[in-house]
Amino acid sequence: MKRGLTRAGLGDVGTNEQFIALAAAYGFQSVDLNAADLAEPERVESIRASLEQHGVELGSFSLNVEWRTTDEAFRAGLPLLAAAAAGAAALGCTRCCTYVLPATDALPAPFLAQATKRLRVVAQLLGAYGIRLGLEFVGPHHLRTRWQHPFLWTMDDTLTWIDAIGESNVGLLFDVYHAYTTGLAPAELERLSAHQIVHVHINDAPDVPVEEVLDNQRLYTGEGVIDAAAYLQALQRIGYNGPVAQEVLLPAPPTDAAKTLLERSKAGFDRVFAKAGLN
Amino acid sequence: MKRGLTRAGLGDVGTNEQFIALAAAYGFQSVDLNAADLAEPERVESIRASLEQHGVELGSFSLNVEWRTTDEAFRAGLPLLAAAAAGAAALGCTRCCTYVLPATDALPAPFLAQATKRLRVVAQLLGAYGIRLGLEFVGPHHLRTRWQHPFLWTMDDTLTWIDAIGESNVGLLFDVYHAYTTGLAPAELERLSAHQIVHVHINDAPDVPVEEVLDNQRLYTGEGVIDAAAYLQALQRIGYNGPVAQEVLLPAPPTDAAKTLLERSKAGFDRVFAKAGLN
Amino acid sequence: MKRGLTRAGLGDVGTNEQFIALAAAYGFQSVDLNAADLAEPERVESIRASLEQHGVELGSFSLNVEWRTTDEAFRAGLPLLAAAAAGAAALGCTRCCTYVLPATDALPAPFLAQATKRLRVVAQLLGAYGIRLGLEFVGPHHLRTRWQHPFLWTMDDTLTWIDAIGESNVGLLFDVYHAYTTGLAPAELERLSAHQIVHVHINDAPDVPVEEVLDNQRLYTGEGVIDAAAYLQALQRIGYNGPVAQEVLLPAPPTDAAKTLLERSKAGFDRVFAKAGLN
Amino acid sequence: MKRGLTRAGLGDVGTNEQFIALAAAYGFQSVDLNAADLAEPERVESIRASLEQHGVELGSFSLNVEWRTTDEAFRAGLPLLAAAAAGAAALGCTRCCTYVLPATDALPAPFLAQATKRLRVVAQLLGAYGIRLGLEFVGPHHLRTRWQHPFLWTMDDTLTWIDAIGESNVGLLFDVYHAYTTGLAPAELERLSAHQIVHVHINDAPDVPVEEVLDNQRLYTGEGVIDAAAYLQALQRIGYNGPVAQEVLLPAPPTDAAKTLLERSKAGFDRVFAKAGLN
Repeated sequence: MKRGLTRAGLGDVGTNEQFIALAAAYGFQSVDLNAADLAEPERVESIRASLEQHGVELGSFSLNVEWRTTDEAFRAGLPLLAAAAAGAAALGCTRCCTYVLPATDALPAPFLAQATKRLRVVAQLLGAYGIRLGLEFVGPHHLRTRWQHPFLWTMDDTLTWIDAIGESNVGLLFDVYHAYTTGLAPAELERLSAHQIVHVHINDAPDVPVEEVLDNQRLYTGEGVIDAAAYLQALQRIGYNGPVAQEVLLPAPPTDAAKTLLERSKAGFDRVFAKAGLN
Repeated sequence: MKRGLTRAGLGDVGTNEQFIALAAAYGFQSVDLNAADLAEPERVESIRASLEQHGVELGSFSLNVEWRTTDEAFRAGLPLLAAAAAGAAALGCTRCCTYVLPATDALPAPFLAQATKRLRVVAQLLGAYGIRLGLEFVGPHHLRTRWQHPFLWTMDDTLTWIDAIGESNVGLLFDVYHAYTTGLAPAELERLSAHQIVHVHINDAPDVPVEEVLDNQRLYTGEGVIDAAAYLQALQRIGYNGPVAQEVLLPAPPTDAAKTLLERSKAGFDRVFAKAGLN
Repeated sequence: MKRGLTRAGLGDVGTNEQFIALAAAYGFQSVDLNAADLAEPERVESIRASLEQHGVELGSFSLNVEWRTTDEAFRAGLPLLAAAAAGAAALGCTRCCTYVLPATDALPAPFLAQATKRLRVVAQLLGAYGIRLGLEFVGPHHLRTRWQHPFLWTMDDTLTWIDAIGESNVGLLFDVYHAYTTGLAPAELERLSAHQIVHVHINDAPDVPVEEVLDNQRLYTGEGVIDAAAYLQALQRIGYNGPVAQEVLLPAPPTDAAKTLLERSKAGFDRVFAKAGLN
Repeated sequence: MKRGLTRAGLGDVGTNEQFIALAAAYGFQSVDLNAADLAEPERVESIRASLEQHGVELGSFSLNVEWRTTDEAFRAGLPLLAAAAAGAAALGCTRCCTYVLPATDALPAPFLAQATKRLRVVAQLLGAYGIRLGLEFVGPHHLRTRWQHPFLWTMDDTLTWIDAIGESNVGLLFDVYHAYTTGLAPAELERLSAHQIVHVHINDAPDVPVEEVLDNQRLYTGEGVIDAAAYLQALQRIGYNGPVAQEVLLPAPPTDAAKTLLERSKAGFDRVFAKAGLN
C-alpha cells in the first residue's frame, strides 16, 4: 500500500505542484487531485513534471460530473470528464472517485435508478481510459436523517449497487471513517477481493458515542479511536496494494501551518502503518 | 391490437384449455397464463392444441421468479423460469410480466439495486427465448403508504428503472388502471415508442375520488370512469399492436357465472374498441 | 419519413448554413452534418439559426471517434465526441452513425470484440444526450475481399452484433445500396421494429450484375435499378418515420453545379416517394 | 492454491464418489465434475456426502450449454444449466468453465457476436448463483487451421472478448498447455488481477517444436518441457488461490490403472509445487 494525501485537513498546500512537493517531502507516495486540474493539457504537463521530479503518483481524482441532479447538469459535465480522464490516464492514474450521501430529498428508488444509468455512462467513459470508478459509502448517523428519505450507507448495500451498475471497473472507495460509523468490522473486508477496492481513505474519529460522530469533525490519522491498522491489515490480506489517502474533513480550515499538519499526518501514518506491519 | 383476457374477474373459467375455448367463444384473441403451466412439456402440448384449435394466442405469462425477497428464493425459481420460458417460446409467446408495488418495507434504494440485478438475470434468460419482460407500475394511492417506504409508481420512474436494468427486451406492462390512478394523460403515451410497451391491461375504475380508488375494486372494461379508448388510441398512434388483456381485480370472487362475465367483458371491449376506432 | 440530404454527391454546397438553405430550397427536410462542426458552441448556434430559419432538421451526424484502430486513437476522440453530442443534442438531433466495412486486415473475432467494447462506450456516451447510434452494414461484393479477412455485411449479422453490443440505443443505418448489394428483399425489413432503424440512406445502383456494383459508383436516387420505393414502403409499414437521406458516393467530384444536382436529387425523391405512396 | 483433478488422463476413476475418494487418497484437494451430474438433487446430495467425508472441494464444472451452434440447441440447454448451477452452488462451487476453439467454420465476427450474446446469458444465470464463468483459450497450432477461419487463441484476445461480454463474473481458465503453445511468458500473467483468473489447468507437453505440439498428446504434470512452476509462481504473485486442476488429454484411454496414474500425477504435482515454493 502507498501512503497518500488528499488536500482535506492540510490547510493551504498551494498549487498542485507545491502540494506534490510537500507530499514527497513528508514521505507520501501519492496525491489525489481535482478533475478540473486534469482537463487542460498544459496543466497536465506541469503536474506530470512535478510527479516525476518528486517520485509521487497521482492516486485518484474526484469525479467532476453532477450525477445527482438534472440531466442537463449531468450532460454538461461529460465533455470535461472525458478531458479529465484523458489527462489522468496520461499521468498513469487509474482511479476516479465520488461519494454517496446516505439520505436524499428525492424518492430513493427512482434516484438510484437514475444514478445507476448515469454512473454506468461515467464508468464506461472512464473505462475507455483504463480508469476505475470508486463509490464511497458515507456512514455518520446524523447524515442518514439530514434529508427526507434514507438512501444507503453500508458497504454491502453499496456493493449491491455496484453490481446493479454492472460495470466491472466500478468498486468501493473504502474510508475507515465510514467503516467505523457503520460498525463494519475489519474482518468483513476479508470477504472481498482486492479488485473490489478502488481506493482507500484514512483518518480518525473522536472518542464520542458512534451515533454522535459527525462527518466533518474528523481527526488526523492515528489520533482517535478507529483501529485503522486493523482495516489496513485486512486490506493487505486480500491483496490491496493501492494508495491509502488521508482525508480529514474539518468544520473550519485548520489554523496550523501546512508543514505542521503534514508532519503530524506523517507521524500518524508512521504509527498506523507500523502497527499494521506495513512499511 | 388484440382483445385479450386474464383470468382475473372471470370467476371459474376452468382449465387452461377451457379458458382458451371460452375466450375464443366470446371473440377474444389472446389469453394470459401462469408460468407454472408452461414449464411441463405435456401441458404445453395440450395448451398448444387448444390455442390452435380455437385460433387464440398466448399473450403473456406471469413471471414466476421471486425477485423481491431473498437470494435463495430467487435462485430457487430460475430453473422453473427457464422451463416456462422454453414452454412459452414453443407456443409463440413473446411476453412475460411482473408488477412493481409502490411501497416497500425494505430500504428502497438497496431494494431497487437488488431487484435491478435480479431482473437483469430474468431479462437475459427470457431474451434467450425471444421473450420480453414487462414491468407494471401500480398506481392506487392506498398502496403507496401501505408499506414503510415509498418505492415508485409513475410511468416515467418505471421507464427510468427499465433503462437502469439496461436490457433491451424490458419494457412496460401498461395498465389503464394505473395510468388513471397516477393521473397519466393518454397523450403522455405518445412520447413512447411501441417497443417500450410489452403488454397492456384494461379494466375500469369506479366514480370515486381518484385518491380513494382501491386496487382490488376494479370494474369491468368500459363500465367506469376511465377513458380506456383514449389510451388505446394513443397506443395505436405509436404503433402498439399487441394484446390488450382485461384484468379485473375484485375483493372477492365474482358470483356470476363465467359465461355471464365473459359476455359482459365482451360488451365492454366492444364499446371501448368501437370508441377507439379499433375493430 | 423526411426527405434528407448528406453532402455526398452534391458537389460544393458551401458552408453548413448554405447547405441548409439549399436543402430547404429543394424541399429537403433534414441534413446530415459532420461531428466536428457540432463540437464548438458558436458554430452550433449558427447552425441552429440556419435550421430554424429554413425549417430544416439535423438528421444525423457522423461518428467522429476512431473505433477501428488503436486504443490511443479511440481515447483521443472521446472528448470531441462528448462535445459533438452536446452540440447535436442542443440542435434536437437524435442520431449518430458510422459504417462497418465488410472485411478487415485484423483477425475478425478479436477485432469485433474490441469494437464491441468501444462502440458500447460510444453508445453510452451518446445515450446520455438522448442520441442513438446507427451502424451501417456495407454490401458491395468487391469490398468483401478487399482486406485479408471477411468481417460482416448482412443485416442479420449486423443485428446480432447490435445485440452483442447490448445497448438499447444502437440500431441500423439502413442504406438501400447495401440492401440491394446483399440481396436483401424489402419484405425482410418487416421482421424489424421501427426502433431498430436509426437512420436511412437512399441512392441508386447501375444496371450491372450485382456482384460488380462498386461502392463509389452510385447513382442519384431513382435513376438506377434499386426499387427504393419498396424499401420505403416496408419501412413505412413498420412505423419508421425518421429521415431518409440521399448519399451518392462517386469516384470523383461531380462536375455539375450543386443546384443542378439538388434539382436532380429532388426529382428522384419526388419519383420514389410518389411510387412509395409517401408525400 | 489447491491441487485439483479433472478426470482427463486418469482412466477409469469410477463414479463421482469414487473419484472424490481417490483424489483425496492421493492428496488432491479439489475435483472438477460434469454439469449433468449436478442437475439432479439426489446426486448432488450424494456428491456432497463424499466431498465432506473426504475433505475435497468441487473445483469447477463444465459448461453444459451449446453456445456454438443454433439458437435451438442453446435454448434447450438453459434449464439444465440452471439446475446444474443450483446444484453446484449447493456444493459451494463457484466456477464453471468452457473452452474456445482457435478456428471456426463460421464467419468469425458474427460467430463471436452470437457467442457474446449467449455467454452473457450464461454468465448472468451463473452469477445469480455466485458462480463465475471461465473461458479457456486453446493454443495448439494445428487447431488454428483445422477449421476454415481463424478465431482467437491468445490470452490477450480472450481478455478483450471477456471485456466485450461485459459481465464481471467472467474470466480466464488458464491452462499451462495453451500458455506454452501460444508462447505466453509466465511474467505476462503479472499484468492480471487475481479475479481475472477463474480456474487453472496443469499438465505438460512433449519436447517437440512448439508448432508441432498436439492438443491431445499431453503429458502428465511435470513430465515434459513446460515450466509449470513458473506459471504457478506468477499466479501466486497476483494472488490466485483457487484450484489448479490436472487435465491430460490423450489420443487414447490410458492403459495403466487409475491408481498408478494418480500416483504419477501426485508425484508430478509434488515436483512442480515444490519447485514453485508452494506446499
